[in-house]
Amino acid sequence: MSALELVERKKRGGSLSRSEISSLVDGFTRGHIPDYQMAAFLMAVWFRGLDAGETLALTESMMRSGRVLDLARIPGPKIDKHSTGGVGDKVSLPLIGIAMACGVRVPMLSGRALGHTGGTLDKLESIPGYVTAFDAERYERLLRHPGGTIVGQSDDLVPADRDLYALRDVTATVDCVPLIVASILSKKFAAGVDGVVLDVKVGSGAFMRDMEQARELARALVAVGAAFGRPVSVLFTRMDEPLGEAVGNAVEVVEAVEFLRGGGPEDLREVTFVLVAEMLRMGGLAASAEEGVSKARAACGDGSALACFRALVEGHGGRLDWDAPGCGLDVAPVAASLTAPRRASLAAVDGRQLGLAVVDLGGGRKRKQDLIDARVGLRWRARIGDVLEAGAPVADILAPPGMAVDAVRRRVEAALTWSDAAPPGAARVLGRYPDAG
Amino acid sequence: MSALELVERKKRGGSLSRSEISSLVDGFTRGHIPDYQMAAFLMAVWFRGLDAGETLALTESMMRSGRVLDLARIPGPKIDKHSTGGVGDKVSLPLIGIAMACGVRVPMLSGRALGHTGGTLDKLESIPGYVTAFDAERYERLLRHPGGTIVGQSDDLVPADRDLYALRDVTATVDCVPLIVASILSKKFAAGVDGVVLDVKVGSGAFMRDMEQARELARALVAVGAAFGRPVSVLFTRMDEPLGEAVGNAVEVVEAVEFLRGGGPEDLREVTFVLVAEMLRMGGLAASAEEGVSKARAACGDGSALACFRALVEGHGGRLDWDAPGCGLDVAPVAASLTAPRRASLAAVDGRQLGLAVVDLGGGRKRKQDLIDARVGLRWRARIGDVLEAGAPVADILAPPGMAVDAVRRRVEAALTWSDAAPPGAARVLGRYPDAG
Repeated sequence: MSALELVERKKRGGSLSRSEISSLVDGFTRGHIPDYQMAAFLMAVWFRGLDAGETLALTESMMRSGRVLDLARIPGPKIDKHSTGGVGDKVSLPLIGIAMACGVRVPMLSGRALGHTGGTLDKLESIPGYVTAFDAERYERLLRHPGGTIVGQSDDLVPADRDLYALRDVTATVDCVPLIVASILSKKFAAGVDGVVLDVKVGSGAFMRDMEQARELARALVAVGAAFGRPVSVLFTRMDEPLGEAVGNAVEVVEAVEFLRGGGPEDLREVTFVLVAEMLRMGGLAASAEEGVSKARAACGDGSALACFRALVEGHGGRLDWDAPGCGLDVAPVAASLTAPRRASLAAVDGRQLGLAVVDLGGGRKRKQDLIDARVGLRWRARIGDVLEAGAPVADILAPPGMAVDAVRRRVEAALTWSDAAPPGAARVLGRYPDAG
Repeated sequence: MSALELVERKKRGGSLSRSEISSLVDGFTRGHIPDYQMAAFLMAVWFRGLDAGETLALTESMMRSGRVLDLARIPGPKIDKHSTGGVGDKVSLPLIGIAMACGVRVPMLSGRALGHTGGTLDKLESIPGYVTAFDAERYERLLRHPGGTIVGQSDDLVPADRDLYALRDVTATVDCVPLIVASILSKKFAAGVDGVVLDVKVGSGAFMRDMEQARELARALVAVGAAFGRPVSVLFTRMDEPLGEAVGNAVEVVEAVEFLRGGGPEDLREVTFVLVAEMLRMGGLAASAEEGVSKARAACGDGSALACFRALVEGHGGRLDWDAPGCGLDVAPVAASLTAPRRASLAAVDGRQLGLAVVDLGGGRKRKQDLIDARVGLRWRARIGDVLEAGAPVADILAPPGMAVDAVRRRVEAALTWSDAAPPGAARVLGRYPDAG
């Protein structure tokens, strides 16, 4: 079968066999199948979907397109957490320290900011000396002790995903469930994890705008995990406003460290504890979600989670002034503050616009090659459902002296919807898939 | 609007404005919009279609992508006939001579064989000396006298179609009505015609497999023509078996000349006369289809059509031995003959397989760069509905001595369905659009 015949068959709604999917992925990765043919295939998949067998075959052939790490020699459960991306989503940073302190080994391959969402690697690179480049020896060493690592994607791990993702990004085929599933899980499984907890963000600040889409994604993720014999579970969390107060890079690292000292914003603590609890349950380290949450809470209270995170940062060469306020990181001062225009409650927030405001400040990327200013960001001081008095603080814009921030300010103002009625605040954790508690 | 946003909008089922379509076509033709992005757009169009305004805008921007010829200085109606392609479809050759003899000027830009269908230029190139390359001076001179020309596409005429067609061919997006319409009409209108008669082939030997598809294509063609203020009309003709007896290149030229001498197979005569009649009616040279057919028939009877065709061939440098049997062309001898296996009637023919049999013999192209052997072909001696005695001739395979033709013979045999009942023979002309007589 030629690639053209496979595009034709998918276009007509037919199914491809495992070996046909594999020949497409291999041919594309090796340069035998041209970009334009794969682009046509991806668009046909956007319309026709992939069935369970095709999604599994795609995940498998992408995983096998490069090196596949084997962590079997390292004892204990190797469990990763992955988020579909949001605004102010610094969960990975405190979570990894807590999970490590509770006995999970966490091999975390993270990504960079693109569009309105931040990227964990960019946040870590605001720490002087932190090396995000993948190195197999260090990866395995840190997984053994202190028990976790956060690094970038290795070039020889899942090259098919790198190439396919770059093509999807420029052909309007990013928002396609089976392609998202294969992209996420091929990387996790190539990295050698035993299981993955997915944080699927839902709302205006996320790629999944509603629960229906999110559930479809969850079902497909869990099904592929089951076919690989590796547990995958999904938590749906609300992402229509920033998670925590800090949005940016250095400010998010600071907030994470404050959290690990026992402080930090309540919404961030809620989401992080629930995700850690799921990792503990998956790894056989907690019998229930409740037990998992209390173990996680205890690891924050006794300093063990902070000690693990510090060992992880130092293991990657990172130097923080752990005891200084703000960890000694360079954070831009407040350039402008937004306040409530009248006594009113915050009814809705366009999270995507807040993320783009940070990009405008230089804290994110419009194009892959853009450099990031780690100092800038937002400090988010209100929550949906809060009733604020006129003049009460809503958000601070953090920018270097001299930077014009009027346009950013207008973007943030336009992202807010005020109401005279007081809408109820909503929980951040919206549900779990599979539902079984 | 970036190209990516336009792909996204079409993917979601939205419409593009005239200037957005134009920016896509221009950007692609100039190389600013990459192949893969246009491939994704074409596949989205395959699924979502183009509305009337979009199809018009696409036709117009493709037409304007290169030189647009102006034939206004040449007196008389300039009308072309275009076929969607079939097996043994040599209609253009006799048709142009007859139409010229009846007073129509025919500026015909033709194509080459690809896949199972033949190409008029390849047929003409079996005539020694015939130059198919476009030359503006000769084009206009031959249109003035003798009144017709058949040449290839000029490089500077509709470059957008050349590039888009090449991309559609490798991305499974050829079979898409609005893209077909824009491809056909942008070329015809750039070539300066006043009107076009379309021969839309329907059946197993054609790209349109059924009348529903064919009618959809006809409606879109006529609508775009109307928007340009140039009449377009469509005749649907049956293409589930070869038209005429000859299938190949030199053999089809010979059959065309026999026709112009007053002979030739009845089905070929029927289709050709009806198409010429439509051209005459469009050009104001006949008041009805009946009058058109009788004028066409007369031009064959009095030798004027043959004289016109001869002047056209000689105007392009072609040299035929007009009075010799077979016009002195080199035609391969009969290498194998197929006969009826028993007393039975021919119930169905897979026309596409017959076209591919000629490709196997070397008379067509699998890839664009393939060379063609003008001598080979088939002589088709039975018709659907014929009741044949056991051993009666069905087809001859024409091939150079020494060529192995067993596989070709098996392909032709497999393309035939025999029946003990006698199915009725069907008319070759299936209808007209618009219906109004």
